[in-house]
Amino acid sequence: MRGAFITLEGTEGVGKTTCLEFVRDTLAAADIPAVVTREPGGTALGEIIRDWILKGNHGRLSAETETLLMFAARAFHLDEVIRPALDAGHWVICDRFSDATVAYQGGGRRADKGWIQSLRAAVHADLEPDLTLLLDAPVEVGLNRIRTREPDHFERENRDFFARVRAAYLELARDEPHRIKVIDATPSLPEIESRISGHMAAFLGVFSR
Amino acid sequence: MRGAFITLEGTEGVGKTTCLEFVRDTLAAADIPAVVTREPGGTALGEIIRDWILKGNHGRLSAETETLLMFAARAFHLDEVIRPALDAGHWVICDRFSDATVAYQGGGRRADKGWIQSLRAAVHADLEPDLTLLLDAPVEVGLNRIRTREPDHFERENRDFFARVRAAYLELARDEPHRIKVIDATPSLPEIESRISGHMAAFLGVFSR
Repeated sequence: MRGAFITLEGTEGVGKTTCLEFVRDTLAAADIPAVVTREPGGTALGEIIRDWILKGNHGRLSAETETLLMFAARAFHLDEVIRPALDAGHWVICDRFSDATVAYQGGGRRADKGWIQSLRAAVHADLEPDLTLLLDAPVEVGLNRIRTREPDHFERENRDFFARVRAAYLELARDEPHRIKVIDATPSLPEIESRISGHMAAFLGVFSR
Repeated sequence: MRGAFITLEGTEGVGKTTCLEFVRDTLAAADIPAVVTREPGGTALGEIIRDWILKGNHGRLSAETETLLMFAARAFHLDEVIRPALDAGHWVICDRFSDATVAYQGGGRRADKGWIQSLRAAVHADLEPDLTLLLDAPVEVGLNRIRTREPDHFERENRDFFARVRAAYLELARDEPHRIKVIDATPSLPEIESRISGHMAAFLGVFSR
């Protein structure tokens, strides 16, 4: 049996990194080997593209170009890392995946969401995440938390951009409530982890390895 | 009026670089300023992608990933270089463009040509080359000419690969005889240049700047 594919999603400052470590630790405690990876990134090509998008000096970079770059890096990431790991029976935890392209390039930067979904179908119609944990918080909460670090390409965007990203994420969650679990990221960390534990326990109960 | 968009196409070793210089010189003699660029490449992002594809150590690089990379680089190239130059009234001569993706990733590497054409429509439905010069020679002729240089990612492919690339190019030319002019690349250079001159003169006569 192939492993399970779990993704974490959310806007800046919602605590994705901490929660990802918690998910990995939860799986480790259940004796389930997991590969942790991220998008954009996860491969040599993906990291080159991530670096260029986040830190580059890119003039007229359109939402459509960003979308194509994300899916090019994703197609390679799937072939190089995600599918081989799943096929070998490992679980994969990925920090952002195609939902992020719908939310950021579609919602935030207003690229056509139908076109993004058609690329998604072209690149991985055979494989969607089995479980997606969407960490959700009001835009101000996330932006306050990241105020101390040097902003990257997306972090330089304004409040309205992040409000559109959040709305697009929540719309995806309404469309796919079985796959995407919305987790309120505003309570204390133990409270958030307790909720993630609940979703993980339910998922472990139904996903047959 | 916008400038004209001219592309040069052809497989390895057909003399594209020499002919491109001849086209530029022909335009210069007619007092037409031309921007010379290339794909993959032509921008900082494009050159990063070109370098990675041609020289990278890329494991499971699929034809679909290559196609997405080519169109991502192309979308940026169009926004950064090609459209601004054309809008400013300059002519643009581009060494390879979307026909090459149909020929190499579609013909050579067997990615779905219908999907490639749908990406082409998504990225530049508003702009196709006004004139494409396709330099054509039997596969053996081109391969013999490049035998002395260190092969890149594509040059490492076998004879059958290049036969499929050539066939795909010729199929495009049959579908669009008005835009794509096939030039036999096997005669002497003066003879080839004379034929290019003929096509250029005809084109200059009809393209109103």
